[in-house]
Amino acid sequence: MIGFGVVGYGYWGPNLVRNLSELPGAAVVVVADAKAERQRLAKTRHPVVEVTNDADRLIDDPRVDAVVIATPVASHFELARKALLAGKHVLVEKPICASAREAEELISLANARSLVLMVDHTFPYTGAVRKIKQLIDTGEIGQVYYYDGVRVNLGLFQKDVSVLWDLAVHDLSIMDYVLGKHPVAVSCTGCNHIPGQPEDIAHMTLFFDGSLIAHLHVNWLSPVKLRRTLIGGSEKMIVYDDLEASEKIKVHNKGLVMEADQENLNQMLLRGYRSGDVWSPQVDLTEALRVELLHFMQCIEGKEKPLTDGRSGLRVVRILEAAEQSLRMRGAPVQLEAS
Amino acid sequence: MIGFGVVGYGYWGPNLVRNLSELPGAAVVVVADAKAERQRLAKTRHPVVEVTNDADRLIDDPRVDAVVIATPVASHFELARKALLAGKHVLVEKPICASAREAEELISLANARSLVLMVDHTFPYTGAVRKIKQLIDTGEIGQVYYYDGVRVNLGLFQKDVSVLWDLAVHDLSIMDYVLGKHPVAVSCTGCNHIPGQPEDIAHMTLFFDGSLIAHLHVNWLSPVKLRRTLIGGSEKMIVYDDLEASEKIKVHNKGLVMEADQENLNQMLLRGYRSGDVWSPQVDLTEALRVELLHFMQCIEGKEKPLTDGRSGLRVVRILEAAEQSLRMRGAPVQLEAS
Amino acid sequence: MIGFGVVGYGYWGPNLVRNLSELPGAAVVVVADAKAERQRLAKTRHPVVEVTNDADRLIDDPRVDAVVIATPVASHFELARKALLAGKHVLVEKPICASAREAEELISLANARSLVLMVDHTFPYTGAVRKIKQLIDTGEIGQVYYYDGVRVNLGLFQKDVSVLWDLAVHDLSIMDYVLGKHPVAVSCTGCNHIPGQPEDIAHMTLFFDGSLIAHLHVNWLSPVKLRRTLIGGSEKMIVYDDLEASEKIKVHNKGLVMEADQENLNQMLLRGYRSGDVWSPQVDLTEALRVELLHFMQCIEGKEKPLTDGRSGLRVVRILEAAEQSLRMRGAPVQLEAS
Amino acid sequence: MIGFGVVGYGYWGPNLVRNLSELPGAAVVVVADAKAERQRLAKTRHPVVEVTNDADRLIDDPRVDAVVIATPVASHFELARKALLAGKHVLVEKPICASAREAEELISLANARSLVLMVDHTFPYTGAVRKIKQLIDTGEIGQVYYYDGVRVNLGLFQKDVSVLWDLAVHDLSIMDYVLGKHPVAVSCTGCNHIPGQPEDIAHMTLFFDGSLIAHLHVNWLSPVKLRRTLIGGSEKMIVYDDLEASEKIKVHNKGLVMEADQENLNQMLLRGYRSGDVWSPQVDLTEALRVELLHFMQCIEGKEKPLTDGRSGLRVVRILEAAEQSLRMRGAPVQLEAS
Repeated sequence: MIGFGVVGYGYWGPNLVRNLSELPGAAVVVVADAKAERQRLAKTRHPVVEVTNDADRLIDDPRVDAVVIATPVASHFELARKALLAGKHVLVEKPICASAREAEELISLANARSLVLMVDHTFPYTGAVRKIKQLIDTGEIGQVYYYDGVRVNLGLFQKDVSVLWDLAVHDLSIMDYVLGKHPVAVSCTGCNHIPGQPEDIAHMTLFFDGSLIAHLHVNWLSPVKLRRTLIGGSEKMIVYDDLEASEKIKVHNKGLVMEADQENLNQMLLRGYRSGDVWSPQVDLTEALRVELLHFMQCIEGKEKPLTDGRSGLRVVRILEAAEQSLRMRGAPVQLEAS
Repeated sequence: MIGFGVVGYGYWGPNLVRNLSELPGAAVVVVADAKAERQRLAKTRHPVVEVTNDADRLIDDPRVDAVVIATPVASHFELARKALLAGKHVLVEKPICASAREAEELISLANARSLVLMVDHTFPYTGAVRKIKQLIDTGEIGQVYYYDGVRVNLGLFQKDVSVLWDLAVHDLSIMDYVLGKHPVAVSCTGCNHIPGQPEDIAHMTLFFDGSLIAHLHVNWLSPVKLRRTLIGGSEKMIVYDDLEASEKIKVHNKGLVMEADQENLNQMLLRGYRSGDVWSPQVDLTEALRVELLHFMQCIEGKEKPLTDGRSGLRVVRILEAAEQSLRMRGAPVQLEAS
Repeated sequence: MIGFGVVGYGYWGPNLVRNLSELPGAAVVVVADAKAERQRLAKTRHPVVEVTNDADRLIDDPRVDAVVIATPVASHFELARKALLAGKHVLVEKPICASAREAEELISLANARSLVLMVDHTFPYTGAVRKIKQLIDTGEIGQVYYYDGVRVNLGLFQKDVSVLWDLAVHDLSIMDYVLGKHPVAVSCTGCNHIPGQPEDIAHMTLFFDGSLIAHLHVNWLSPVKLRRTLIGGSEKMIVYDDLEASEKIKVHNKGLVMEADQENLNQMLLRGYRSGDVWSPQVDLTEALRVELLHFMQCIEGKEKPLTDGRSGLRVVRILEAAEQSLRMRGAPVQLEAS
Repeated sequence: MIGFGVVGYGYWGPNLVRNLSELPGAAVVVVADAKAERQRLAKTRHPVVEVTNDADRLIDDPRVDAVVIATPVASHFELARKALLAGKHVLVEKPICASAREAEELISLANARSLVLMVDHTFPYTGAVRKIKQLIDTGEIGQVYYYDGVRVNLGLFQKDVSVLWDLAVHDLSIMDYVLGKHPVAVSCTGCNHIPGQPEDIAHMTLFFDGSLIAHLHVNWLSPVKLRRTLIGGSEKMIVYDDLEASEKIKVHNKGLVMEADQENLNQMLLRGYRSGDVWSPQVDLTEALRVELLHFMQCIEGKEKPLTDGRSGLRVVRILEAAEQSLRMRGAPVQLEAS
C-alpha cells in the first residue's frame, strides 16, 4: 500500500484525490489546503482522510510515501524540494516549476536520492495521444510535416502566469511525447488586454531541424472552446479534436503526390494531390489521470520508468522561457539549447 | 451598356463571365485565354461571346470599356498597365500585383486618366463581412481586442506564389475593410515542404497601435478545410465561419467583467467573466461577385467610389512583402510604413 | 435535516447519493443494493453511510424520512408501496411503475397519507427544458405546430423493458411539462432484432386536439448518439440539442407568412416563408438532479408542490401502455383517456 | 447525336439543360415553359437553344429524340403519354406520375413501343448511395436491421402535392435501389398546418418480411435542414449525411455481440456491444444528374438497361398511395401488393 499526501484541493486536486481513492494499492492519507472552504469540501467528500492546512506536516507525515502537488506554479519548487529532501516521491502538476533553473535542481535532488520525480503532463496518458504516437512511430503518417495546435476558451484560470504557462504547456508536453525530436528555436507573439495582467493570447512557432514546423495558438479570450490539433504527414494527416465525444482522432488518407524528377533525381516534383478515405480509430477512453497515477505507482515500485519525468518537464519549461523572451521582442526568434 | 473583356478563363474567370452575363447593363464582349481547352469551354457555355487567345487585341477592342483580369499574379501588372494606357477601366483579381512598386504605378496611371482601378477583394462584398463591419462600426462588440483568422485546406492552387499571396490576401482584405486601422508591424513564420516550391504553411502576427493584435494561419497542406475567424471585443465576440450554410456569423455575448480599482482609478481590475446568449444575425446571401460587379459598374458610371480600390490593394501587398521578409528571418518583426 | 434511504446503487443510484451527500439539510442514512460489488463501491465512496442488502430494513429505518427508489421498473411498485405504507415520502425513478393500475394505487396511497410521491422525471429540472417551457408559455414561439424528438444511441440499458419504457419516457415527461396539453391518441410502430428481447427501435406519433402533432424516435441500435428535439411554432421554431455543450437551445426566427384571404376571411393563405436571426439563450447549467432533489425536499417540507408528481408519472405510463398496444397492431391508433 | 427537348424550366429544368449542354453526344434542341420570364432566362443562358411555350410542338419536333419532363407532378402522365405515343424516349422527374394507374399505363406504352422510360430518381446516381449499395451487397454491414431517413427543411416547394410526394419519394427511391427487398405494409401519420394545404409533416414506417423495418421523417416546417439516414446492420452501421461536404458516408464498426445459447442452439443471446473504428470511404462526387443523363443516353442507344425504370417509379408511387391511405386512418397499417 502506497500512502499519498495531496497538497492543493482547488481545481485539479479533487480529481487527484478521487482517482487515488479508487486505485487499489493506494491510500490517500492527508490532504492539505490553505483555504477553510476547500478543507470542508475535502472532508465532506472523503470523511476518513485527514485534512490539514499545513503542507509541511503533510510532507513529514511518516505514512506519506509520495507527495502530489496541485498548487499554483510559484509554489511547486519549494514544495517539491521539501518533499524530495524528506525522501518522498513527487508528482507535480504542470508546469513542473516556474523556471528551468528550479527544474534542474529538482532533477538533481531526485537523482541523488533515487526518488521518482514525475510531472503531471496528463495528455500523454490519454488514449488519443497514445494513438497519435503510434501512428507516428509506425510510420503510418510518413514524415511529419507540421504540428498545429489550437487551445482556446474564455477564462483566466491562473493569475500568476500567462496563457503560455497555463495552456501551451499541454501542447508542448504532447509534442515532447509524440514527435521524437525537439525544437531548435522559437518565435512567439502575444498580447495582454487587461492592464497589469499577463498575456491572454499567444501564438508560438517552433522550428525544428529539417522541414518540420509546429505552431500553437493559445487564447483565454475566445468566445468558443476549441481543442484541435492538425498533424500533417507525407503519407497521411491527423485531426485530433479533444472535444469530440467519440471520434477524437481522424486519420485522413490525403497528401501530396510526388515523383522524382527524371533529370535531377535528388529533386521531387509535385504531381498532384491524393484524397482518400477517412478513418477514425477507436481510442481507449479510460480517464487519463487514472492511467497516469497507476504509472506513478509502478514507477515508485521500480517497475517502470516515468514517461513524463523531470527532464520532460524541464524541456517544456525551457521552451516556455524562450517563448516569453521572443514575445517581448515581437516574435524575434530565440535559439533553444539541446536538453 | 458597359462592354467587358475578361482576360483569363481558368479557375475564377468562368465565375466572372457567368455573373457579368446575367447583369443588366453589362455585356461580355470578348474572353481571352491562352489555352485552347479553356477557349473551347468558354465558347460552349457562351456561344455568342467572342473568344480569343490574344489579350492585347481584347484590350484594344473598341467595344471593351472595362478589362477584368483573372490571370496569374505575375501578369497582373503588365495587363492592367496596358488596359489603363488604352483608357479602359480595370478590375484585377487579388492580389493587385506582385509588388508594392507595381501597385503604386497602376494607381498613378489610373488617377492620371480618371479611370476606375478596382481590386477583386471579394470578401468585403459578402453579407457576412458587411455584417461584421456593422457590428464593429456601431460599437456593438466594443473595443476590438483581436482578429484571428484560419484559412486552411489541401491544395496548391498557384505555383508562382506562396500560400501567403494565395490565401492570406483574403484575410488581409477583410481586415483592411472591417478594422478601420492598419497594422504597424508584422512577424511571420512559415515553411515549405516541397523542394523548390514556395511556402505552403504560414503564420502571421500583425501588431497595431494599442492592444489590438491579429493573427492569420494559412495552410495548403491541411487535411480539412477551415475558414474560421474569431474577433474578440471588449463587449461581445464574433465567430465567423464561412463554411456554415446558414449561421455564418455568431455573436457571443461574452466577455470580461472589469471594474475600476478604487485606489487607482486609472486601473481596471478583472472581476470575472460574462457568459450570455449567442445570436446569429441573418446575412445577405447574394453572391458576392454579383454585388462587386454591380459596384464596379456604378463606379465606372461615376455613381460610387470603389470600396476595394488600388490603395487597399497596395496596403495588402505591402503587408505581404513585409511578411515575406519576416518569414526569411524566422519571425523577426518588420515595421510597416503608413500607406 | 431530512434522512434519506436510497434503494438501488446501479447506474443512477450513485448520482442520487452523490447529490444528496452535498445538499445542505439532507443526510443519506442508508443505501441498499442486492449486489455485493455495488455495496463495496458505495462503502468506498461514502464510508460513513450505512450499506445494506435489505431494502425492507432501509424502509423501516426510523432515521429515514424519504425513500429514493433507483431499481429496475418491475420493483418500483412494491418498494414504493411499502415505503408509503411505512409513512415515508417517495421519489421513484422513471417510469413510475410498470402499469397505470400500479401508479394509480400509489397515488391513492400517498394522497391518503399526505405523503409526497414524486417521479424522477429529470428533464423538467434542466435549464434547457425550463427555457423551452418559458418560450412556449410566453407565446414567443406562437401556436405550437409540432414536437419532434429523437433519442437514439447504442445500448440496451434495461433488459426488462422495451426502448419505449427506457427512452421515450424522457420525451413524454418533457412534453407533459412544456406543452400544456395532453395527447388524445397514439400510433406506434417498432421492432426487435434480438429474439426474445423487447423492442429496440420504436416510432411513436401522438395526436392532440387541433393541429398539434408529436413524434418520438427511440432506438437502442443507433451508431451515433442523438438527443435532438425540434419544436415548430407559428412564430418561431426551437432546436434543442442536449448534447451541445453550450448552445443547447436555438430559437430560429423562421416561419410561414400567412395572410387572410380577402374573399374568405376565415381562411389563411400562405404567402411565403420568413427566415431570420437565430438566437441561443443562455440556460442554467446546474445539474438537474440537484435542482430536483432540492425541490423534493421543499415538497417534503410543505413549501412547494411536486412538479413531477404521481399524476404526471401516471399520464406518461398510460401513453406507454397505449403505444405498446398500437405497436402490436402495426401502428393502428389507440385512443387515450383523459388523465 | 441525341436530340433532347426539355419541358419545364422552373427549379429543376435549368440543371437538366445545363448538364445536357455539356454532355458529348447530346444536343438540347428545344426548351418549353409556359412562363415568359423563364423563357427569357433560358434564352439568356442558352442563346442557341430554341425556346417555346408549346410543349406539344416540342414533343412533335423531329429533331427531338428524347423528351425530358420537369413539370409539376399533375402534368407528368399526359406529357409522357404524348411523348411515348410520338415515339420519343422519356425521362420524367420524380415521382413518375400522380397515381399507380397512370404509371402502369406509361410502362405498357413504353414496352409496346420499345422506348426507354426512365424516372429521374437522382439519388441512386450519387457516389454516396452507390457506396451504400456496395456496402449492403457485399455483406459488409451484415443483415440490414433498419433504415431510418430524415429529410426536413423549411419550405413548401410544390403546392399540388403533400410533403410525402415531394420529399419521401427520394428516400423511397434510395431504398428501392439499395435494400434489394420491398415493403409489405406501411403505417403513416402526418398533419397539415395551413388550412386547405396538403400535409407538411409526415412519418412513415415501412414493414418488410423478417425483422427489417424502415422509417422516414419528412417535414416542410423544420427550422433546420437535415438530410440524414441511419442504416443499422448486424455487423456494421452506416450514417449517411448528404449535407456533409466531404465525409458523406461513415461506417461504424459497431454492433451487438451475440452468442448461441448452449441449451437452445436456435436462439441467440445478447452478450454485449461492440464499439470500434469509424471509417469514411471516399465517394465519387461527380454530379449525379450528369451520371444519370449519361446512363439515359446509354439506355437510348441500347447499351444499358435503365436503373430507375418505370417499374421502380411505379413501386414508389404505390407506397405513396398506401401511405396516404394510412395517414387518413391515423397510422392504421395498409398492405402493399407485390409489384
